[in-house]
Amino acid sequence: MSGNEVGEGSDVLLYLDARRNYLVRVRRGERFHTHRGFILLDDLLGKSFGEAVLSNLGHRFIILKPTVYDYVMKSVRSTQILYPKDIGLILVYSAVGPGSRVVEAGTGSGALTTALASFVRPRGRVYSYDIRPEFQRRAASNLERAGLLGFVDLKVGDVSQGIEEQDVDAVVLDLATPWAVVPRAREALKGGGILVSFSPTIEQVVKTVSALEEEGFVDIETVESFLRRVKVKAGETRPEALMVGHTGYITRGRKTEGGTRPSQSAQPTSS
Amino acid sequence: MSGNEVGEGSDVLLYLDARRNYLVRVRRGERFHTHRGFILLDDLLGKSFGEAVLSNLGHRFIILKPTVYDYVMKSVRSTQILYPKDIGLILVYSAVGPGSRVVEAGTGSGALTTALASFVRPRGRVYSYDIRPEFQRRAASNLERAGLLGFVDLKVGDVSQGIEEQDVDAVVLDLATPWAVVPRAREALKGGGILVSFSPTIEQVVKTVSALEEEGFVDIETVESFLRRVKVKAGETRPEALMVGHTGYITRGRKTEGGTRPSQSAQPTSS
Amino acid sequence: MSGNEVGEGSDVLLYLDARRNYLVRVRRGERFHTHRGFILLDDLLGKSFGEAVLSNLGHRFIILKPTVYDYVMKSVRSTQILYPKDIGLILVYSAVGPGSRVVEAGTGSGALTTALASFVRPRGRVYSYDIRPEFQRRAASNLERAGLLGFVDLKVGDVSQGIEEQDVDAVVLDLATPWAVVPRAREALKGGGILVSFSPTIEQVVKTVSALEEEGFVDIETVESFLRRVKVKAGETRPEALMVGHTGYITRGRKTEGGTRPSQSAQPTSS
Amino acid sequence: MSGNEVGEGSDVLLYLDARRNYLVRVRRGERFHTHRGFILLDDLLGKSFGEAVLSNLGHRFIILKPTVYDYVMKSVRSTQILYPKDIGLILVYSAVGPGSRVVEAGTGSGALTTALASFVRPRGRVYSYDIRPEFQRRAASNLERAGLLGFVDLKVGDVSQGIEEQDVDAVVLDLATPWAVVPRAREALKGGGILVSFSPTIEQVVKTVSALEEEGFVDIETVESFLRRVKVKAGETRPEALMVGHTGYITRGRKTEGGTRPSQSAQPTSS
Repeated sequence: MSGNEVGEGSDVLLYLDARRNYLVRVRRGERFHTHRGFILLDDLLGKSFGEAVLSNLGHRFIILKPTVYDYVMKSVRSTQILYPKDIGLILVYSAVGPGSRVVEAGTGSGALTTALASFVRPRGRVYSYDIRPEFQRRAASNLERAGLLGFVDLKVGDVSQGIEEQDVDAVVLDLATPWAVVPRAREALKGGGILVSFSPTIEQVVKTVSALEEEGFVDIETVESFLRRVKVKAGETRPEALMVGHTGYITRGRKTEGGTRPSQSAQPTSS
Repeated sequence: MSGNEVGEGSDVLLYLDARRNYLVRVRRGERFHTHRGFILLDDLLGKSFGEAVLSNLGHRFIILKPTVYDYVMKSVRSTQILYPKDIGLILVYSAVGPGSRVVEAGTGSGALTTALASFVRPRGRVYSYDIRPEFQRRAASNLERAGLLGFVDLKVGDVSQGIEEQDVDAVVLDLATPWAVVPRAREALKGGGILVSFSPTIEQVVKTVSALEEEGFVDIETVESFLRRVKVKAGETRPEALMVGHTGYITRGRKTEGGTRPSQSAQPTSS
Repeated sequence: MSGNEVGEGSDVLLYLDARRNYLVRVRRGERFHTHRGFILLDDLLGKSFGEAVLSNLGHRFIILKPTVYDYVMKSVRSTQILYPKDIGLILVYSAVGPGSRVVEAGTGSGALTTALASFVRPRGRVYSYDIRPEFQRRAASNLERAGLLGFVDLKVGDVSQGIEEQDVDAVVLDLATPWAVVPRAREALKGGGILVSFSPTIEQVVKTVSALEEEGFVDIETVESFLRRVKVKAGETRPEALMVGHTGYITRGRKTEGGTRPSQSAQPTSS
Repeated sequence: MSGNEVGEGSDVLLYLDARRNYLVRVRRGERFHTHRGFILLDDLLGKSFGEAVLSNLGHRFIILKPTVYDYVMKSVRSTQILYPKDIGLILVYSAVGPGSRVVEAGTGSGALTTALASFVRPRGRVYSYDIRPEFQRRAASNLERAGLLGFVDLKVGDVSQGIEEQDVDAVVLDLATPWAVVPRAREALKGGGILVSFSPTIEQVVKTVSALEEEGFVDIETVESFLRRVKVKAGETRPEALMVGHTGYITRGRKTEGGTRPSQSAQPTSS
């Protein structure tokens, strides 16, 4: 079962339960300490993912191969939580996939960058801008850990002043003033290319939609999503009491050539 | 701008507005008829995506390059609507991405197959089972149209009787009795591999979670998601009145080696 | 079982199923026609609520006593649907109950007026304003049918110009420009009295909250609610596919004496 | 402004902000201590509700008259939180109002009892059962504080063994096995009377709906509701991040005379 075995340098997710699971890089001779005792990392070498390892106190940890979402959720010093529900919707609305060339701004902790990078593989590329060099350093570290740094250009710069790339498939915005970036995003996108913006406040959304309309984008849509966990057990099945009521609104538009609204330039002879 | 031009045989999305947009294959000499007049498909040849074309009545249609979701949403004779919110979550929870080997059952109209196939490119593969040959024919047609048939094996068969593939990364279930497939999914998955099941009723979820626990899966989680569109316009911004309140529950688990619950085989000396 | 018998002039809800149920006033010698045949209203006389009556085609209708919500939901020519979820929240947030004196604007079809009137009985009163005389006539008709007209003063007038009542317990607003009414509502409310506003757009909410803050209201809160029906049947239990995603935001505040924000007039010597 | 003045023995809500507000009974010569200093309760005597009082540290507290919901939310030692959204829906679905005779079980901390009692005033009555005498004592204390004890009969007993009242308008259930009470509720209800049950788990709902169907109830409906607060401030307006995702399902049915399902006893000659 080559490829599914733990070796020196492998990343593993040591899973005790839904709340207690740890992303660990396996190093010969090292110990990993938990509240349930320590694990000798040498014990993991040669094991297959899915197998278990015991802590010195006899607790059983399952050895899982980290997914890209494990990396996203465990991003170091994330300034903002990015939820799977939002990553999923951003992927769907941006239509980013294998081979896509994507501009992202801002990079932040690199959480969304990590997800995007994993999906453009092996031939696409993510160009991720942030004006804060210290964020780019942290994002580089998070991307390196996930093995995805090779698919990303981390760039320090202000996208409202300009985007260097041309004919990109998508622009994904997660910054305070997305409306100010829309004209620059328009220049960078190829015809029909997609802009997706993630914003927590409704005022950001109103300004961004207005900017998209002015720049001639079509198929403009804003959504918000809710995710509720369900506790499933025969006789006790119920949704969980607390849910995330709001993370942000997702706005999407597609670039047209011409830069004005369809309704303004069309001259229908009848309707 | 090579690659972004319309040619003979190109698929285009002729976009009038959010409700009226049409997936059309460009054929020399043909006409496409709409309620706003017809479009001469010859007029599209050589245009770039993002540009517009006029119908004979003067209405302006934007020429967009179809995304994978446009293909999904326009799947022919879909038995069931698969919403972007569910596709996004299934992707995230299954961790399917470039290179993944995925078993799917049932194929249905091929809508989810289309989405999965687009993400495993270029080196992964989707093995999609359905017991109904007529569904496989329809799915083949939908996948061919989306240019993704080359990444999928469409198989006629009952996955509750067995899955031929081994060491797959993920099994994605969208069928009436997912719990009956869990033991077979366990055999097909590699260690740590992920099973995701999509089910409309809570009773299906309870049985599936119980089967996952019996088969030693961990990190079991069930969620449901809601998506609400927002009508955005300065002074009139409001969520839309109707929303999709339920499509299905998404249940996820990860395979462990051993086949029994972690809590049963662990012998902690203290806690 | 006096009081639970149908007599001449009684209102009854003839219930076939959740979608087909009819609010009917019993008149001797009359017939009520349905798609399942007609019912001789004489057959109802002397029956108890909860009993059944057969149509001439043999279909069984249950005779129910209409609740106030049956009257609300069957209001004639309602311009806007008022959902039970919103009525319930408006009651809770306004703290309207037996004995309350309430100002409402606008009256509209009288749907909310009906609910409010039923709760202030027997000694409270609803003063309901609308600038459109034809709405007041329709509301009067709906209130009369529900037997609640005696608890309401229907007034034609513009509440942004002034409210005649003083020291009222609550002001409930369901109109286009609630912020313009806030100063008048302040004058009409007793100290500590409660204003509740129901608005569909977020821009209305922002302006109304701002007006409440300027007028010195405290305990200001805005909420929105969602209601989802669940189809319950062993083995097929699932939430309904469509739900009402938005009706309106509910904003509440309590009047203080002084008219300025607490934070502006307080001079704490420490914190 | 008689009736709106604070006197010896008045209850007041001392309001600092949304999180810090205190239900206090005014006693001559006493002090009320807060983290913002103490308040001399003598300072409140003769003030009107809506006015402010300063703590010894100069912090301004607004003097509000407690609503029934303030009493509900501040119930002493509540075992379970009852949310305004649920109270509102229970009121609407049970059609409880002035004059209603209502059976409630179990009493619990008396939170829902308090709300129901406030609405049946002045001539209705709440008969509230609980098998645990200590809960009845606590509920009595909470009801007394809210001034509503005179409208409630607190009874120690097991409603699954029998309900003493006859011809009641509504039965409201908030207990672990509502389905076991449905036959007794049927006997206690008048024809057309309404049963409302509040249950956290879906399995409770399935059993309760089944019991309602067997006992011939009609107009059976199950709903769940969500409430989301919105932070409203120009330029920063956004729904709050956390929301209550689940409290319980609300199921409603209306009693028919006959005790069997309409569909079983009807003999339509055509459809």
